[in-house]
Amino acid sequence: MGSTPSCFVEVIVPVQPTLEDKFSFGLWTVGWQARDPFGDATRAPLDPVEAVHRLAGLGAWGITFHDDDLVPFGADAHTRDGLIARFRKALGETGLTVPMITTNLFTHPVFKDGGFTSNDRTVRRYALRKAIRNLDLAAELGAETFVLWGGREGSEYDAAKDVRAALDRYREGLDLLARYSTDQGYRIRFAIEPKPNEPRGDILLPTVGHALAFIGGLEHSALFGVNPEVGHEQMSNLNVTHGIAQALWHGKLFHIDLNGQHGPKFDQDLVFGHGDLLSAFSLVDLLEFGGPGGGPAYGGPRHFDYKPSRTEDYTGVWDSGAANMRMYLLLKERAAAFRADPRVQEALAASKVPELSVPTLAPGETLADLLADTTSFEDFDADAAGAPGYGFVRLHQLAIEHVLGAAG
Amino acid sequence: MGSTPSCFVEVIVPVQPTLEDKFSFGLWTVGWQARDPFGDATRAPLDPVEAVHRLAGLGAWGITFHDDDLVPFGADAHTRDGLIARFRKALGETGLTVPMITTNLFTHPVFKDGGFTSNDRTVRRYALRKAIRNLDLAAELGAETFVLWGGREGSEYDAAKDVRAALDRYREGLDLLARYSTDQGYRIRFAIEPKPNEPRGDILLPTVGHALAFIGGLEHSALFGVNPEVGHEQMSNLNVTHGIAQALWHGKLFHIDLNGQHGPKFDQDLVFGHGDLLSAFSLVDLLEFGGPGGGPAYGGPRHFDYKPSRTEDYTGVWDSGAANMRMYLLLKERAAAFRADPRVQEALAASKVPELSVPTLAPGETLADLLADTTSFEDFDADAAGAPGYGFVRLHQLAIEHVLGAAG
Amino acid sequence: MGSTPSCFVEVIVPVQPTLEDKFSFGLWTVGWQARDPFGDATRAPLDPVEAVHRLAGLGAWGITFHDDDLVPFGADAHTRDGLIARFRKALGETGLTVPMITTNLFTHPVFKDGGFTSNDRTVRRYALRKAIRNLDLAAELGAETFVLWGGREGSEYDAAKDVRAALDRYREGLDLLARYSTDQGYRIRFAIEPKPNEPRGDILLPTVGHALAFIGGLEHSALFGVNPEVGHEQMSNLNVTHGIAQALWHGKLFHIDLNGQHGPKFDQDLVFGHGDLLSAFSLVDLLEFGGPGGGPAYGGPRHFDYKPSRTEDYTGVWDSGAANMRMYLLLKERAAAFRADPRVQEALAASKVPELSVPTLAPGETLADLLADTTSFEDFDADAAGAPGYGFVRLHQLAIEHVLGAAG
Amino acid sequence: MGSTPSCFVEVIVPVQPTLEDKFSFGLWTVGWQARDPFGDATRAPLDPVEAVHRLAGLGAWGITFHDDDLVPFGADAHTRDGLIARFRKALGETGLTVPMITTNLFTHPVFKDGGFTSNDRTVRRYALRKAIRNLDLAAELGAETFVLWGGREGSEYDAAKDVRAALDRYREGLDLLARYSTDQGYRIRFAIEPKPNEPRGDILLPTVGHALAFIGGLEHSALFGVNPEVGHEQMSNLNVTHGIAQALWHGKLFHIDLNGQHGPKFDQDLVFGHGDLLSAFSLVDLLEFGGPGGGPAYGGPRHFDYKPSRTEDYTGVWDSGAANMRMYLLLKERAAAFRADPRVQEALAASKVPELSVPTLAPGETLADLLADTTSFEDFDADAAGAPGYGFVRLHQLAIEHVLGAAG
Repeated sequence: MGSTPSCFVEVIVPVQPTLEDKFSFGLWTVGWQARDPFGDATRAPLDPVEAVHRLAGLGAWGITFHDDDLVPFGADAHTRDGLIARFRKALGETGLTVPMITTNLFTHPVFKDGGFTSNDRTVRRYALRKAIRNLDLAAELGAETFVLWGGREGSEYDAAKDVRAALDRYREGLDLLARYSTDQGYRIRFAIEPKPNEPRGDILLPTVGHALAFIGGLEHSALFGVNPEVGHEQMSNLNVTHGIAQALWHGKLFHIDLNGQHGPKFDQDLVFGHGDLLSAFSLVDLLEFGGPGGGPAYGGPRHFDYKPSRTEDYTGVWDSGAANMRMYLLLKERAAAFRADPRVQEALAASKVPELSVPTLAPGETLADLLADTTSFEDFDADAAGAPGYGFVRLHQLAIEHVLGAAG
Repeated sequence: MGSTPSCFVEVIVPVQPTLEDKFSFGLWTVGWQARDPFGDATRAPLDPVEAVHRLAGLGAWGITFHDDDLVPFGADAHTRDGLIARFRKALGETGLTVPMITTNLFTHPVFKDGGFTSNDRTVRRYALRKAIRNLDLAAELGAETFVLWGGREGSEYDAAKDVRAALDRYREGLDLLARYSTDQGYRIRFAIEPKPNEPRGDILLPTVGHALAFIGGLEHSALFGVNPEVGHEQMSNLNVTHGIAQALWHGKLFHIDLNGQHGPKFDQDLVFGHGDLLSAFSLVDLLEFGGPGGGPAYGGPRHFDYKPSRTEDYTGVWDSGAANMRMYLLLKERAAAFRADPRVQEALAASKVPELSVPTLAPGETLADLLADTTSFEDFDADAAGAPGYGFVRLHQLAIEHVLGAAG
Repeated sequence: MGSTPSCFVEVIVPVQPTLEDKFSFGLWTVGWQARDPFGDATRAPLDPVEAVHRLAGLGAWGITFHDDDLVPFGADAHTRDGLIARFRKALGETGLTVPMITTNLFTHPVFKDGGFTSNDRTVRRYALRKAIRNLDLAAELGAETFVLWGGREGSEYDAAKDVRAALDRYREGLDLLARYSTDQGYRIRFAIEPKPNEPRGDILLPTVGHALAFIGGLEHSALFGVNPEVGHEQMSNLNVTHGIAQALWHGKLFHIDLNGQHGPKFDQDLVFGHGDLLSAFSLVDLLEFGGPGGGPAYGGPRHFDYKPSRTEDYTGVWDSGAANMRMYLLLKERAAAFRADPRVQEALAASKVPELSVPTLAPGETLADLLADTTSFEDFDADAAGAPGYGFVRLHQLAIEHVLGAAG
Repeated sequence: MGSTPSCFVEVIVPVQPTLEDKFSFGLWTVGWQARDPFGDATRAPLDPVEAVHRLAGLGAWGITFHDDDLVPFGADAHTRDGLIARFRKALGETGLTVPMITTNLFTHPVFKDGGFTSNDRTVRRYALRKAIRNLDLAAELGAETFVLWGGREGSEYDAAKDVRAALDRYREGLDLLARYSTDQGYRIRFAIEPKPNEPRGDILLPTVGHALAFIGGLEHSALFGVNPEVGHEQMSNLNVTHGIAQALWHGKLFHIDLNGQHGPKFDQDLVFGHGDLLSAFSLVDLLEFGGPGGGPAYGGPRHFDYKPSRTEDYTGVWDSGAANMRMYLLLKERAAAFRADPRVQEALAASKVPELSVPTLAPGETLADLLADTTSFEDFDADAAGAPGYGFVRLHQLAIEHVLGAAG
């Protein structure tokens, strides 16, 4: 580890996006006009058709949207059909897919106390109908995943929301959606996107954990998974890689939103990797090389849910779009080199990382056997067993050197 | 709401603890010697027998402990038996119960990388044996709940811990514990206590949500619930009342740790109510009056897991012990008055809080009926429905006035 | 401390606002239309004239505004004059004062990289001119304080902002403003309002401390103080009462923004006291009874800078406006009782709180005397001096009992 | 920016530490026995003499310590002299310097309510004496800087600490220290180290900003600066590079503590760069290339104040020590390449970063001139000026590519 120039002659991961990378973007990301709580829009509206062409040109594979991103809220059927038709035409021209669709139950004032969990029952019914209509569109466009971000499902004041009643209504709503989807023969899976707060003071199902738990109580729970967003978990200062690993462990990582964030503050939606770089590295390492045999642990879209900063014009928008994909590919390249490095393999072994995959009981060993094994307790020398170091700092340093491209 | 003196003539909740309040304390709480990361102990060791007598004198109902709180780590069988015997004698003299026992898998260096999820398999086996031995003691003392706080189950460096393997081992460990307990005919339930970090950089199962999700995957999942700690959820700046409401919704609130915290920083373990007072109020309101017919939503111990501040001597220790119970009872008194106030009932109705308990579909209504109901969508005037205010601020102000004793 | 009804027969603080209370509101607070990053406006625009009449009716003493709150950005001189004239008429009719004015250097896209510290020099010049024009209006309306909130002065990316150059420009801008004000003979003082983030990823002068330090380097530093906002300090999880005490210590508390917040998340702008209630209590206690002889430590406006929640209609807006003042007065009432309670005085003495006001050196004692005093070191028994408890928990419990109105 | 192997043929920054790098370590860092709030020590005590030899062997230039790190609290004069003598011998053998000394006013119970600001006046006198004695040692060993970390100066409960009185006493204490130092003819500078909390619930002077402001009020303020610690600022989720830039702007960066942290949680004290990598990069870039002509902005020690993780044995301790220096040098290498890259220069110019160093007023321009310049306001087209993008995302992406070693 000297001062010699670092050359990765063995690196083979290309950093130019291909369709195999399954990179997708929300229409609302590059199309964000940069209106924020303290400022007016800094960018003109973006034609969805232009978004399709531009993203395709950058190497993206998919585009996603909320119903209202494509069709203004309250538009009549004719307008709606026309807008959908020209969007589909653009999809056809570019080959871009629509892997995911989601419903906006948060912008209009009617949803100010929530959609599926509004205290107002008529709003809940309306929200259900709006979501169902959008589910039809999702099926029509071949979307595999229907994301549910309940940004308005929450409260600012504890007395104002009966949380258990709200969870009852949330379940009722999702059960109905799933039943409808099944009845129609749709092959769509649902992905709940957790967020701790903003726009509500406290949002229901604030983390990946809460959403996973909730899913266990749904009628069609097999159809439901999570859509974790990097920045949302980091808003609670939680380790996002840990959260996503738990989602994978439950078999519930149905979709993922990649972006960047600087800890507990407002939702920044930075470019992926532009916030906590080491966490982005470990996440890509998990997704790409955490599966069986060192292959991918996740096969779905790599979806960027970010906002081009308000300081940028459209040149900056497209630069930032490209930056998301490049960050992912660069980190994938580094993770590949990290996993392939014999020193890393040695360090992992020295840290006993692989030993954690060995069951605590031996094959065939029973509880009685364990209790009878005096080496496990009676004759166990805890002081001696506590003495050796795990070498975790060295391992982490090796990981960072790969991130830095300095491990060659 | 003028400036007249506030008199609660109708308040009937006594603020003197009784056994019916089921107040319990950890032996490690009043017994904490106040050693912190930057300071030596400021208090002499406390004899567990004195703790029993003192707590009983203050009106507590139960006392809880880690194995090592009562019997020093590594003590021989004779010492252990003697210490347990004199502790039981004190219990007998005072009538104090032992509703919960927990195992220390975090203090000794052998657990520096965890207990059930240490990378070192021999440590995992030892941790299991230590927990099993303690389970026998729990059964012997009639404890109903066995708490599992995995403070060392986690990591500082992402590459150093295979989270999915760790969850496999965690599950293996808990499955074995439950099997052992069932085999022995014990009637003990297990409660997982989440915490986001400290002492580890990131702890596995960091929130109530993650723990609830994990429980769903256990072999004997019915035997497992959660033991949320107020301050632990607040360390992630999550709404603790929301988290506990979700735990209740899942039927999994098996135990609770009450204390105080000032947001995302080190684990403060203040007296209950000495941190976020309004949150403490809403939590007591939920526990005591959130059940069927306005009764208790939770019937288990009100367990205080706090640390008397390092600035205090033993007078301060016992003052702080009493303060926990008094805070709980004062807040219960305020919550009772809040729930009984007709203005509150009216404000709740105006805010449509009870309407959230009405199913979104009418009795007997089908999905097809909903789709056919044009008032739910086609003829729904979203702008009109979005116009009325919910009156949440007024409701919250009423709640605070009850907290302040100013609503009379 | 039993269960007897609590009656404060001695409480004499009225909870109905009077002009002596100096309660003021920003026009942008009650006038906020409730547009947030994820939602459209839920309330119609509020006529500033109506705001004046309504606030006066609620008992407020002052109203404040950004230039653009009263006169739309870019309005011509005729429109501007007309709007100002009818606003002044309303002020005359109601007796409401304009104690403070501030300039909007954040809403228009031109300020997307800041006002006084934009990387673009022409923007900086424009910002200066806009602020100077508004300073003339402030003088014309008799405002005593000119608040400077630099919400856009900051960055998202470290390389994009030369912080030292930015502080140079910030200083240049404020020096020019002060020079202009002095040249014109205005008797206006300037108050910098710190905020850690939002809308920028990181805002310059993020806390009260940073702003106080910066002021020390200004040409006319005597004219500059701070305008701390409760929630802004709490967004960094800092103790806001500590921060304001330090501002008072420096003689720099020129203005204050009262509101509520739940820790590190987006800027909630709740009603004062609707967030961290105990912190609100200690702040009111400091402001009202922390001065010489137990009188007020601060004589300026009690300014509410909050946002009526998006769930509220105009009934809720005015309820929330009134709630701010009532919270302040209720807490003032409790703080008065706290300070008057002989048990509190005794507890403070037991905790040696007043002893901290005694200089460490005796009157006339020199450094040499201290060095010669062997009781201070050579013969000092540190162990014995470290043994007694400070009784802080008991003192805090007494404070809370006064907050709860349970100390009678 | 393709997939070609990245080779930095132009990189000339060596990554092997030299004395010119001025790397120093606290004796308490490598000597930390890894006792934490929930765990016993995992490492045996380290002989200070061994620490000196080891650190010298790794390439360090200096070693620092608290009085009690070297000489146990309460040791007699003979013991003290002996310990100091053998330590000095080791310094002589290795050439290691002692650039900084600091006083422990936090470990012993006597300091449980603070040192200079304890409510107990006898404790304050003792603290002063202890610090003065240590100042003599600092002078004797040729230390240039005396760090003041007031970890116990603070409170858990607002009523328990009169903050303004505490600041009076803090000032009194520091004024006396400075007077003593000046009287003795010492050429020592003092550096205050801010921290928001831990071990106290709230520590006085919680951030760089608060400390800088406080310094302005000291008698010998020229002798006082700050010693910011990376992780301490990040515990409040503040941008540490911004804070240090402000300290430099005030001419007050007297010393620096480098380490790593993952946002608002307990004080992690990770290896430098092992937390927020991009922030570490921007900090090194500022320190090394932010000065006049692109040279260093700071010439003092690069001091590592970290804790080797509790999972590590002494091999891990020395690995982690080396990792700190290597991280710094690697980031310095990347920052050098970043600054030298013509594309970066071009991007900075496009983002108008250098334009912020141009005064807002032209040379010789007066306020009157500005007011007369209609292009600055009356004829300024704000919409047009707000339209262009700043290209900040592209610039940040370039910075990251240099961090990744992918910009070649």
